[in-house]
Amino acid sequence: MRILTPASLNPAIRNVQYAVRGELAIRAEAHRERLKEENHGLPFDKVISSNIGNPQQKGLDQQPLTFVRQVAALTEWPPLADLAPGVFPPDVVARAKELIREIGSIGAYSHSQGVPFIRKNVANFIQERDGYPADPAHIFLTAGASAGVSLLISMLITGPNSGILIPIPQYPLYTATLAQYNGTPIPYYLDEASDWSTSVESIEVALKEAIAKGIEPKALVIINPGNPTGALLEESTQERLVKLCEDHSLVLLADEVYQANIHNRATHQFISFKKVVSKMQSPVPLVSFHSTSKGVTGECGRRGGYFECTNISEPVLALVYKMMSVGLCPVVSGQIGVDTMVRPPKPGEPSYELWKKETDATHAALASRTRIMAERLNKLPGVSCVNSPGALYLYPQIRLSKKAIEAAKSRGKEPDAFYALELLDRTGICVVPGSGFGQKEGEWHYRLTCLCPGVEEYVNKLERFHREFVSEYNSS
Amino acid sequence: MRILTPASLNPAIRNVQYAVRGELAIRAEAHRERLKEENHGLPFDKVISSNIGNPQQKGLDQQPLTFVRQVAALTEWPPLADLAPGVFPPDVVARAKELIREIGSIGAYSHSQGVPFIRKNVANFIQERDGYPADPAHIFLTAGASAGVSLLISMLITGPNSGILIPIPQYPLYTATLAQYNGTPIPYYLDEASDWSTSVESIEVALKEAIAKGIEPKALVIINPGNPTGALLEESTQERLVKLCEDHSLVLLADEVYQANIHNRATHQFISFKKVVSKMQSPVPLVSFHSTSKGVTGECGRRGGYFECTNISEPVLALVYKMMSVGLCPVVSGQIGVDTMVRPPKPGEPSYELWKKETDATHAALASRTRIMAERLNKLPGVSCVNSPGALYLYPQIRLSKKAIEAAKSRGKEPDAFYALELLDRTGICVVPGSGFGQKEGEWHYRLTCLCPGVEEYVNKLERFHREFVSEYNSS
Repeated sequence: MRILTPASLNPAIRNVQYAVRGELAIRAEAHRERLKEENHGLPFDKVISSNIGNPQQKGLDQQPLTFVRQVAALTEWPPLADLAPGVFPPDVVARAKELIREIGSIGAYSHSQGVPFIRKNVANFIQERDGYPADPAHIFLTAGASAGVSLLISMLITGPNSGILIPIPQYPLYTATLAQYNGTPIPYYLDEASDWSTSVESIEVALKEAIAKGIEPKALVIINPGNPTGALLEESTQERLVKLCEDHSLVLLADEVYQANIHNRATHQFISFKKVVSKMQSPVPLVSFHSTSKGVTGECGRRGGYFECTNISEPVLALVYKMMSVGLCPVVSGQIGVDTMVRPPKPGEPSYELWKKETDATHAALASRTRIMAERLNKLPGVSCVNSPGALYLYPQIRLSKKAIEAAKSRGKEPDAFYALELLDRTGICVVPGSGFGQKEGEWHYRLTCLCPGVEEYVNKLERFHREFVSEYNSS
Repeated sequence: MRILTPASLNPAIRNVQYAVRGELAIRAEAHRERLKEENHGLPFDKVISSNIGNPQQKGLDQQPLTFVRQVAALTEWPPLADLAPGVFPPDVVARAKELIREIGSIGAYSHSQGVPFIRKNVANFIQERDGYPADPAHIFLTAGASAGVSLLISMLITGPNSGILIPIPQYPLYTATLAQYNGTPIPYYLDEASDWSTSVESIEVALKEAIAKGIEPKALVIINPGNPTGALLEESTQERLVKLCEDHSLVLLADEVYQANIHNRATHQFISFKKVVSKMQSPVPLVSFHSTSKGVTGECGRRGGYFECTNISEPVLALVYKMMSVGLCPVVSGQIGVDTMVRPPKPGEPSYELWKKETDATHAALASRTRIMAERLNKLPGVSCVNSPGALYLYPQIRLSKKAIEAAKSRGKEPDAFYALELLDRTGICVVPGSGFGQKEGEWHYRLTCLCPGVEEYVNKLERFHREFVSEYNSS
């Protein structure tokens, strides 16, 4: 019989690329295994995973929020409230009882769109955030934001000439999903010189070029706050982007999973596209994504998230529902995670003080690490780094010498992948090369997360490596 | 601007059909809402969801296994072990500690393929079940079996002339996924007259017809125990099916999610395809699916599952891994659910007695209900029903009069959908019409689950309705 080979499989699958868990991450895992051996021979004693925004990962220090985990434990095994009296604060006990009354067993499939009660709470959260109404019937709970993004892209793409506008640099979920569903990415470039701002003009240019090539633009992806850039959009830009979607009949896909990750809330404020569209009374079809994985919740493994549809017609919503129903339902413990995210303890409630302390500490740690890392990276020769106001990342640019580029080529690597591999092999720090996110021709970057404790030691390692690398590959 | 309509979306999405959560289920939900009103005017006082294998659903009586929920609660909030001493049996405390040591926080993304430690435990479970080795590197943890099936089908389909052999009747996930990915189902018919047995000859016929039409057969789907039929394959048939896959270079997709649902384990035994392939030393590429949603665990909302790849080459496994990594990771609490499924308490351990009592009771209730329902259905005029040895369902055939068929047509319904809608509207019992699973031209069936408590009252309702329906639509 014929053997099953990659060549006999769907070619679209072969074209999918997802660097965040690619070569670097696999090599980091191998190092981690090797470190368990007594004479491992590696020049470091631990691997630091800065490749993925995974705050509760081993070796990073973000602790889960107590409130989130207490509600989770009680909904998993409701008799606990009586078996361990006094262990859970009364507001946690009340919340768990309320959820169980509405959901029934968390071991049962829920409504395919998500538990109606939890969708109502999400709608209230949105309404409080924006000051405009939200409809639970237009909210879909999902397994993280990724599942929703993938579903929406699969629905919008009608063939290889369907295009979706993607920022460059971007989170590679977008290009990976487009590759999987045979769509065409229409790249538009963010402007590094003005702190990775989004230029409406550059999108217009990208649109024109795409249309000239016979590509039909279907949607515009905006990541705000940005990934990997951490940039935050200004309201005036958001308004112009909505107008652009109106003019070109584009669906606006707003990835807003970092909305709670704003480092200085005195100077920077997140404004949702839902608010902008509502304020403008725009008819633009908008799908906004949110997740329990980021923010200060950081519950990535829980796979909780939602998307809200605005200006999407009932027949289209019915199709979205049908597709959700084939997958039966989003994981119920993830839905409960969404509930705790959109209904955190309020001042005066028993869990509030601890929740406030824990979330404040996480916000402060992220802000301080981001600032320190950006400052120190900017002092390195050949490195420049926009100091991100939001999200969990920095995306420094590295200028590489001809010698380094040639060394990379001789190993069959992109220059920034070569730099990142050397960084990993010499320090144990795992980052993702810019080629995984996209960048202008001839530029090189990498993305690192600002999640590692011990920022001083961490930055020292980055600095030492960079100076070594530069002197080793000095062209002169 | 142009409005987003179904016509502007991916046409493949429009073609997807999934009856288990379709018209009947939506109508049942509406009835349930209406029952909350004081003067609802419905001729019943509760809706009974027999449309979906969801054992822990409200109104059904399957309780979660205490062991599963205790481990879940402790891994959600590990400090509980010390805060509530004596509440958890020592084996639960030890299991939770071991899992947390291996996983770290369950709020972190895990390895995209699933936690290595849990995959090792799955491999041990398979090896113990079959007597043949299993490799953790070939096991992928998933969000239920559906996610795995969908991924594999999306990888195997290379274009609209790619076909996959699907049993009729089938669980509609298969046709839905094929529609989504533009593949072609190649239906083969199960033989109702011999207790829904699988005929190798009928598959050969289907293959020939498909090849004559220019369709390239890629894989054979077998559901064992069957859904919706509950039939169990004999080993000799399994061997012939493996041979057939060898002869035609087919990937064997073995949906074995009901492997623990055998009603009489003295007379019937589940044999996995992994065991058959291993025993025959066959090179057939096999992917076997399992889930925490069925069996006596019934943890549907947890979204836990796995698939094992046998005779799948490393480069293909690498592609599967890459696709899993785009979705980041299967939900970690679902992975822990898989761990408790493959490592239940052993005799002598503190949790064993209760676990045994709970699982025995569920097995006995399912077996008894299935038998009683099949017996009583078989006594009804125009109804015949194979008494399923396994799974959670019965799939009775109903012979409908010309008058009933015409009444259905006049309402724009399939005759069995009309029957099922009438059943729902008059009794509150929600089943799925055979047209959702497939059946021979001119035959009509419906699927009902054997999960409802109070079997006597339930069957009485079914009987009363059927006799009324028959007399109302008596053609003579």
